[in-house]
Amino acid sequence: MLGYKEATSIIRFRLSEKRFKHSLRMADVARDLAEYYGVDVEKTYITGLLHDYAKGIPGDQLLAIAEENGLIEDEIERYIPDVLHAPVGAYLLKEELGIEDDAILNAVRFHTLGSLHMSEMDKIIYLADMIEPGRDFPGMERLKCLAFRNLDQGMLVGSQSTLKYCIDQGRIIHPKTVLIRNHFLMLLWG
Amino acid sequence: MLGYKEATSIIRFRLSEKRFKHSLRMADVARDLAEYYGVDVEKTYITGLLHDYAKGIPGDQLLAIAEENGLIEDEIERYIPDVLHAPVGAYLLKEELGIEDDAILNAVRFHTLGSLHMSEMDKIIYLADMIEPGRDFPGMERLKCLAFRNLDQGMLVGSQSTLKYCIDQGRIIHPKTVLIRNHFLMLLWG
Repeated sequence: MLGYKEATSIIRFRLSEKRFKHSLRMADVARDLAEYYGVDVEKTYITGLLHDYAKGIPGDQLLAIAEENGLIEDEIERYIPDVLHAPVGAYLLKEELGIEDDAILNAVRFHTLGSLHMSEMDKIIYLADMIEPGRDFPGMERLKCLAFRNLDQGMLVGSQSTLKYCIDQGRIIHPKTVLIRNHFLMLLWG
Repeated sequence: MLGYKEATSIIRFRLSEKRFKHSLRMADVARDLAEYYGVDVEKTYITGLLHDYAKGIPGDQLLAIAEENGLIEDEIERYIPDVLHAPVGAYLLKEELGIEDDAILNAVRFHTLGSLHMSEMDKIIYLADMIEPGRDFPGMERLKCLAFRNLDQGMLVGSQSTLKYCIDQGRIIHPKTVLIRNHFLMLLWG
């Protein structure tokens, strides 16, 4: 497996200073969550470092790569191509770095929109991305507490934060965000 | 066409006192909006009176009627059968009262979730239902102003209010609410 030093060099080269620092902070939080939940710490940390591997790619190129490789899930992604940095990132990690580990690839693939079938590591990566100390949004401290109490409650509140953010900012809501939110809501009903 | 006196008697018989009064207030607001926008006032008023025709039917019966008549659009409706009072209402208005006017039937059908193809009357019925004086929710006064300024802006903010309400109340969000909200958001981008 790729070491964390190598992963750090790779993303330093690929991302802006701001996003590079976000990735370092996010990986730290992901590691803390992995320790707390007894998930593979090293793998989670490396995944945190690499999660935004495709974030520096402009929207039109993300769209082109996604189209060529069948990575478009919903036509609305043509209007919000930035969300494609997650599946394109997973694709490029495999193609360019030779990463074959599905645990890593899925966590990167699902880190923005989530999925109906998320492992604990997938949830940790999704949530760490939202609660790393550089983030600031209403309810962030509550989400941070929840993430360390129950990953599914964290997913519910995290996906709801995304919905509220899109509403308040006048951004398109990806239908999957609602699907995931409803999924965790019903899951928690038991 | 059914007269407003007859429509009033019908819903007085079918609905609880509370919902009957809501329907009267809602029809008044719908009439005001119809006057303002130059839409058929009488038809809009009658539609306002009749919009909750199926609202007194319990969830399991709504589901049964919807299933028998192919009115289920999304499997999630099995978990929130109350939303079916809109399409079931339109179905029963045709079956039981012999109403054939698609303008009326569509406005009833779309009054809870909206549609991608809404007439001005459809939007008026959707919005009047949210802003009648008996309603009270954050942003209601703003929505009332908007409804009398621009129906599409009203639809955007109205559907967003529904999303926020579902989030805050821990209710399932129907995927169509997001579809409609994105639709009006993009429409207003021009």
